[in-house]
Amino acid sequence: MSKYTPDTICAIATPPGIGAIAVIRVSGSEAIAIANKVFFGADLTKIDSHTIHFGTIRKNSQVIDEVLVSVFKDKQSFTGEDAVEISTHGSPYIQQQVLQLLLANGAKAAGPGEFTMRAFLNGKLDLSQAEAVADVIAANSTASHELAMSQMRGGFSSEIQKLREQLIHFASLIELELDFGEEDVEFADRDDLKELVVKLNKALMELINSFDYGNVIKNGVPVAIVGRPNAGKSTLLNALLNEDRAIVSDIAGTTRDTIEEVLTIKGIQFRFIDTAGLRETDDEIEKIGVGKALAEINKSAIFIYLFDINELTLKEVKADLAQFNQKKPCLLVANKVDLADDSVGIPFRDDPLDCHFISAKEKESLSDLKDLLYESVMEQLVDENDVVVTNVRHYDALSQANELLLKVIEGLNNNITGDFLAMDIRQALHQLGLITGDITTDDLLDNIFSKFCIGK
Amino acid sequence: MSKYTPDTICAIATPPGIGAIAVIRVSGSEAIAIANKVFFGADLTKIDSHTIHFGTIRKNSQVIDEVLVSVFKDKQSFTGEDAVEISTHGSPYIQQQVLQLLLANGAKAAGPGEFTMRAFLNGKLDLSQAEAVADVIAANSTASHELAMSQMRGGFSSEIQKLREQLIHFASLIELELDFGEEDVEFADRDDLKELVVKLNKALMELINSFDYGNVIKNGVPVAIVGRPNAGKSTLLNALLNEDRAIVSDIAGTTRDTIEEVLTIKGIQFRFIDTAGLRETDDEIEKIGVGKALAEINKSAIFIYLFDINELTLKEVKADLAQFNQKKPCLLVANKVDLADDSVGIPFRDDPLDCHFISAKEKESLSDLKDLLYESVMEQLVDENDVVVTNVRHYDALSQANELLLKVIEGLNNNITGDFLAMDIRQALHQLGLITGDITTDDLLDNIFSKFCIGK
Repeated sequence: MSKYTPDTICAIATPPGIGAIAVIRVSGSEAIAIANKVFFGADLTKIDSHTIHFGTIRKNSQVIDEVLVSVFKDKQSFTGEDAVEISTHGSPYIQQQVLQLLLANGAKAAGPGEFTMRAFLNGKLDLSQAEAVADVIAANSTASHELAMSQMRGGFSSEIQKLREQLIHFASLIELELDFGEEDVEFADRDDLKELVVKLNKALMELINSFDYGNVIKNGVPVAIVGRPNAGKSTLLNALLNEDRAIVSDIAGTTRDTIEEVLTIKGIQFRFIDTAGLRETDDEIEKIGVGKALAEINKSAIFIYLFDINELTLKEVKADLAQFNQKKPCLLVANKVDLADDSVGIPFRDDPLDCHFISAKEKESLSDLKDLLYESVMEQLVDENDVVVTNVRHYDALSQANELLLKVIEGLNNNITGDFLAMDIRQALHQLGLITGDITTDDLLDNIFSKFCIGK
Repeated sequence: MSKYTPDTICAIATPPGIGAIAVIRVSGSEAIAIANKVFFGADLTKIDSHTIHFGTIRKNSQVIDEVLVSVFKDKQSFTGEDAVEISTHGSPYIQQQVLQLLLANGAKAAGPGEFTMRAFLNGKLDLSQAEAVADVIAANSTASHELAMSQMRGGFSSEIQKLREQLIHFASLIELELDFGEEDVEFADRDDLKELVVKLNKALMELINSFDYGNVIKNGVPVAIVGRPNAGKSTLLNALLNEDRAIVSDIAGTTRDTIEEVLTIKGIQFRFIDTAGLRETDDEIEKIGVGKALAEINKSAIFIYLFDINELTLKEVKADLAQFNQKKPCLLVANKVDLADDSVGIPFRDDPLDCHFISAKEKESLSDLKDLLYESVMEQLVDENDVVVTNVRHYDALSQANELLLKVIEGLNNNITGDFLAMDIRQALHQLGLITGDITTDDLLDNIFSKFCIGK
């Protein structure tokens, strides 16, 4: 991405392709003057801000399009600059012609995220809010949308700001002590300091721990479906999705590739991963599949162990379960109850193992299974805290800040001098400042905004 | 498409998919009231028309998005109704949520072209202008864009309107005569009438003839490239396109399928059709190819006959040319001049055949060839008239009107009575009225607007 300059920039802001209308955005000190050169219908320099005008875009005398132009003056726009939005007919030809005309009249083509970066640089958004703009656009489920929207509207920022203020207060106590260092005075009571930093550490840890939740909300909760061959894994996946995505057959070992499908339950997106049957096999291709299934469990947030209640005994089920990663939450699901007589289920019902009974083929008890999945995820992942970390960059900065606070706690325990403590605290403050953009570098900005789409 | 009702309609107007922003359109008597129920930031019922307001779209207390809302009051909008445009973040999730919210608050989902149909029904555009809106959006070259834009802006309509007025004037003369029929008075001088109707017929014919041009401008000018095997047809196509689209080899008969490629020259779109070599052949698959080549000539607006100047004599070239449809404009092109010594070209230069010399392989004289193509098309197809018919429906109506005028001319020649003449003239007026929409039926409107995209 090009470096920030006060050039006037322009880009097509609407999705690519053909539509009824398209919008071309122009932002910068010359936005209105440049638009005025190509727009005929009103003198844009003389009209009020936030008004809309009908007219034509012309290249010399040729009419490129009939358009509506919206004008934002006195820097009252998304970017905090003067801006113009040109609403054209949605033909790609017209969009390109208008863009080229603006470029020919002195505007520069905007880089990815350059409008949002300007909003940040002009103080309309802090950095974490600016980053959330991209998340808002990418969000595709209720939960991920709400999270991104709350972050864009500043929920996360204000939490970080509170932490920073507390840390600055703590730092000022230490620094004060340093100023009087030669007099060997302790202005800051060490016990009070320790209490404050432990409190800060706890708040940071809550945010750090929210990342797992934030991450699955943003990207979907990975759920592996595992079980022996012919347990009905593909049938279950199809039944959950209500469509025939996976190849279903009676021949054991039909599914070799892992198949991933997305299903939204109560606004949370789940990514279901169907895997090859777990069994000893001589088939080389299938062997890879079994290995993959175990790997998928490790990558999943939660997994479903599915078995055929007519085939396995309680003991066999327990033996299978023992093979898996014990740290991962598991839903134990008995399939094919439609083929079983009542007595078959008794040992499973009597055992403290929390077994859920379904028929994937008959779509029996599937909505209960969905509820169970939703509840398990909420139980496993949701903190009481509503502020949630969704961004790896923020997670890294919070983790680094926390490491530094742990060093401060250790330092306080070992009675090290204030200047060493102050150094770590300054670094921790620096890390938090990186999140909100109180501290930035060009590289950091380039890295963040290059992931945006052009026109935002 | 649903029938026109005064319901308030809404639709996503920007192209589908992810972008920086998306626009949702609402139009109808309740547009402002409905938008006001879901928008928080300003009271939309109390603000001026053509102003823009920042705020949030909320579903109960949940913020769906931060948006800009543009308001068009007192029916001063594209549709001629009160309208609101909501500019949201460009996430498909948000677009759907906002749309659903509008539907839940009393708006109806717009059918294809329903906004433009309302513009027509409210007298903002005539029917041929409304139809041109879809052409403007679909236009993908300078020429097709200019044509559609001029039509949308009313160039064609005013031409038809002029014709109608003249025809009405003519009709009124005849009708006057009818009123006095029993008195056997001829108010309208038969010779004057004939002169007028011949003039009208000429104007109609000009429009009808412009359809060939209009059609190729809109859909591209089909150009067949024909010639004997190994004349270098595929090499020429590749050289023109500057890429390796066709399979090139030294084995005669490599190209069997016809290949079509699009190239825009000076704003006119050409569709080049490479064909199999023309020769007697025993190969069954290739035989089809040769037949296809002759068929392609018939379908093309112009064709290039390409020959290897080192292989054929002037006499052989003339023999080949004699096989083709003599009515189609032909560009005679001698290839492989890079391999020829100067004397080879002499008979071709001396002959009145207008032969153009190139080397497709060395890309020699190709830009001259492109200029020649452009000029030939302009020469063959462009009438002095700038008003051009591009729409099959208009072409049909004009043709029918013309048939009726020919009957009138015949009737005048045979001195038939005014009432028969009047009937034909009324029908001709009806046909012209169908073009501009002065006369419409629900079926006609449904048929026209169902081809539009939703949101337009």
